[in-house]
Amino acid sequence: MEFTVNQIAYLITGEVVGNGELKINKLEKIQDATEGCIAFLDNLKYENFLYSTQASAVIVSNSYVPKSDISVTLIKVENSRASFSLLLEEYHKIISFIKSGVEQPSFIGNNSQIGNNEYRGAFSYIGNNCKIGENVKIYPHVYIGDNVSIGNNTILYSGVKIYSESNIGNYCTIHSGSIIGSDGFGFAPLQDGSYKKIPQVGNVIIEDHVDIGANTVIDCATMGSTIIRQGVKLDNLIQIAHNVEIGQHTVIAAQSGISGSTKIGENCLIGGQVGFVGHISIADKTQVGAQAGISKSIEEKGTSIAGTPAFDYKSNLKSYAVYKKLPELQKLIEELNNKLKQMSL
Amino acid sequence: MEFTVNQIAYLITGEVVGNGELKINKLEKIQDATEGCIAFLDNLKYENFLYSTQASAVIVSNSYVPKSDISVTLIKVENSRASFSLLLEEYHKIISFIKSGVEQPSFIGNNSQIGNNEYRGAFSYIGNNCKIGENVKIYPHVYIGDNVSIGNNTILYSGVKIYSESNIGNYCTIHSGSIIGSDGFGFAPLQDGSYKKIPQVGNVIIEDHVDIGANTVIDCATMGSTIIRQGVKLDNLIQIAHNVEIGQHTVIAAQSGISGSTKIGENCLIGGQVGFVGHISIADKTQVGAQAGISKSIEEKGTSIAGTPAFDYKSNLKSYAVYKKLPELQKLIEELNNKLKQMSL
Amino acid sequence: MEFTVNQIAYLITGEVVGNGELKINKLEKIQDATEGCIAFLDNLKYENFLYSTQASAVIVSNSYVPKSDISVTLIKVENSRASFSLLLEEYHKIISFIKSGVEQPSFIGNNSQIGNNEYRGAFSYIGNNCKIGENVKIYPHVYIGDNVSIGNNTILYSGVKIYSESNIGNYCTIHSGSIIGSDGFGFAPLQDGSYKKIPQVGNVIIEDHVDIGANTVIDCATMGSTIIRQGVKLDNLIQIAHNVEIGQHTVIAAQSGISGSTKIGENCLIGGQVGFVGHISIADKTQVGAQAGISKSIEEKGTSIAGTPAFDYKSNLKSYAVYKKLPELQKLIEELNNKLKQMSL
Repeated sequence: MEFTVNQIAYLITGEVVGNGELKINKLEKIQDATEGCIAFLDNLKYENFLYSTQASAVIVSNSYVPKSDISVTLIKVENSRASFSLLLEEYHKIISFIKSGVEQPSFIGNNSQIGNNEYRGAFSYIGNNCKIGENVKIYPHVYIGDNVSIGNNTILYSGVKIYSESNIGNYCTIHSGSIIGSDGFGFAPLQDGSYKKIPQVGNVIIEDHVDIGANTVIDCATMGSTIIRQGVKLDNLIQIAHNVEIGQHTVIAAQSGISGSTKIGENCLIGGQVGFVGHISIADKTQVGAQAGISKSIEEKGTSIAGTPAFDYKSNLKSYAVYKKLPELQKLIEELNNKLKQMSL
Repeated sequence: MEFTVNQIAYLITGEVVGNGELKINKLEKIQDATEGCIAFLDNLKYENFLYSTQASAVIVSNSYVPKSDISVTLIKVENSRASFSLLLEEYHKIISFIKSGVEQPSFIGNNSQIGNNEYRGAFSYIGNNCKIGENVKIYPHVYIGDNVSIGNNTILYSGVKIYSESNIGNYCTIHSGSIIGSDGFGFAPLQDGSYKKIPQVGNVIIEDHVDIGANTVIDCATMGSTIIRQGVKLDNLIQIAHNVEIGQHTVIAAQSGISGSTKIGENCLIGGQVGFVGHISIADKTQVGAQAGISKSIEEKGTSIAGTPAFDYKSNLKSYAVYKKLPELQKLIEELNNKLKQMSL
Repeated sequence: MEFTVNQIAYLITGEVVGNGELKINKLEKIQDATEGCIAFLDNLKYENFLYSTQASAVIVSNSYVPKSDISVTLIKVENSRASFSLLLEEYHKIISFIKSGVEQPSFIGNNSQIGNNEYRGAFSYIGNNCKIGENVKIYPHVYIGDNVSIGNNTILYSGVKIYSESNIGNYCTIHSGSIIGSDGFGFAPLQDGSYKKIPQVGNVIIEDHVDIGANTVIDCATMGSTIIRQGVKLDNLIQIAHNVEIGQHTVIAAQSGISGSTKIGENCLIGGQVGFVGHISIADKTQVGAQAGISKSIEEKGTSIAGTPAFDYKSNLKSYAVYKKLPELQKLIEELNNKLKQMSL
């Protein structure tokens, strides 16, 4: 993506001092900026970079008084940090939604509808009887099975796979390689030591404003639905098993896993590489330390836990502090034991 | 998928009471059922739902005596729970194998054969010299390299990647995003601190009745074969390294990893997020707790272990119980030490 | 791939004794070799296999004196082990780079260039303004976004996804299902408990000679670049978050995860299922045990650590040895306590 300095100044209501026709294709920190970059100066710790930068433009606040001549093109605004943030958001929105039209070859089954302003990349696949909203961006190699519904303004990056019967909401983003609706992992043991598959006939429901990272997996329900409530943020390589429900605005870091039928509350914060056993219930606003293993339901809101199996976060830190000194402690105990033996003699 | 109540009644040898022409497109629990659903009543705890349900049909046992008038269409059978289970299985079988024919564009290389009743989705890719059996379902975006053999009745969901030389058995199911036959992770250190790749020229053999979840990876052998024996069930996001062998009917939960050349016995049960070091051997019927780290071979059948590094499951629980009280224990030891010091004075 | 014994003998400068026209399609250990295989004999522990093997050819050293008649075809060389290693490497190089040409349908956007000796598999996708070097192998279902640069001699296996703006070096190998450049996981909490996405506008830079396994994810930087330095080796299912930097010749085993902005030094060895918190710095030549959790920066080169949170490797082993005996230790402490109480009476 390429913009002129003038176009950016217009977007953030700023005044250009210098060459407004320069081309900008990257947003960067002032200390890292090179040609084609736009940066900003707010913290005066970085002021010297303003005089040496290779950036094509720098956003500064109106109140900034230069120490000496400046060669780089400036955009002067009310508040340089706020304007740069705004620019970041607008830039990200533009690059996220810029693709449109239908590239060929792409595949769409019978009775499937898709709203205006669509992007369907080459080699994307949409099955039968799908209902897809407006401004939906379907990148190359996306697979959408039969009877899938997708809301408006949702982005599916290259290689996302959505199994049949799934429902995806509005304003969702799903990154490459994530799988929605694969079979739950259910097998019943037979007499001869082998296993019989438990049929998985449910689906996945993803509500609005859900972000899902790359290569994450959400299994369908055995019956009913695996549900990801609105505003949930899932990182990469996460495992969500059948019939799990994740409450709204809960955030889960990479490589965590949630076993079947567990219900996670609202506004929880869950670290990376955490594991939850199945069939438990986690209260709202629970915070879980990285690599913890949760083996029991948590009933009190706002609990913080860590460890495997997890218990109170601070208590775990205290136990761990002693754990690190266990060899010394063992030695002391042995000394005490010997002393006592001698005293008993 | 849509069936009439009459079609379902025929399948489960039941008698329709009510409108047999109603359309059914979902199997659901009676407490969650909506229009288009079929449910069943067995446990009388749920009896009241029979009178209020929006389901289009409910399966009941012949012996069931209604308390009052019922408006929902019924299918009366010998045993409602057993009939519903049968229906689930049949339904799952139908939806799993319903796809057939070849969608275009799809790619098939030279000298590759595929049996009757195939499904090859659009954008599926089959290399050269492949032998693929009957009733095999290859979903869109599946990649099959050269010289691959696949048995009968196997399903590869969208985005599965099978490297060249792999062998897949009969009645296998592999879910989206799983990778079979990527290079083993082998690098030899050189004098200058860099690494030289150890060539990986082996393959992967997957026997019959193996189920593999989504985004799981099975590396090829350095030489010879990485082998997944018959009836093995692997969940999502699992790592199987080069030259691993997994014994028949072993079940491994999500996000576990098995390092190179380790041999897992038959009928083992392995929890989620477990890790095994390489070059060890695990006895049949071993049970491993979630998040355990297995650093040594296990020789005795039926062992249960937990922890990192793992040891006996119950002993680990006992140690952990003390771990949680370590700060108190430390305090007690210090008190004893002080007392003894005073006594020695 | 198929070669004659004569072709192989020519490659390794050996002398054929027997039928040089036999076809070879596999390299195997002598104890596992079947028809079509070539094996080697070095360790005399395996000598008996030479007389019973079904291999089509065996490489032996000139110095080897047979005990009796040999029916299998031999290739005699100076050093059988070294020649077999050479053969493995050559064979692997050939099968890795043998694909060439452009299969259809494939997609290439505007202004994208690709060097000589390319392979572009069917259903591969290349966006706009990409610069791709010579001898690059792009397998089916690979996605390459806009403005991506890729060096020479790089292989992208089926299903690799490279987001826009990424830079990939020379002699890199990326296995199936790996994702380069997905959004970093950054969300700012709002007053109402929901989250606002922090725009991710940076990219990923992968230097030369980097190997990446299957289904690994490398997120783009928030601003600037996530950087994988030359010679880094990443296994399968690894998570690399935004703005991470991994120093040259560092090796990371499967299912490990590195949180945002953490810098890993050069020549580190990191076990499987390890987790690093964000914003820390790890010294060169650090060694980390499997499943460790690293919560603090490591400043001293060559440190070995283990545990969660991780500390010195050997100290952790010692603490863990006591942990396993904690119930006994607790009992001893209680006995001491009782004795002291009695003595105090």
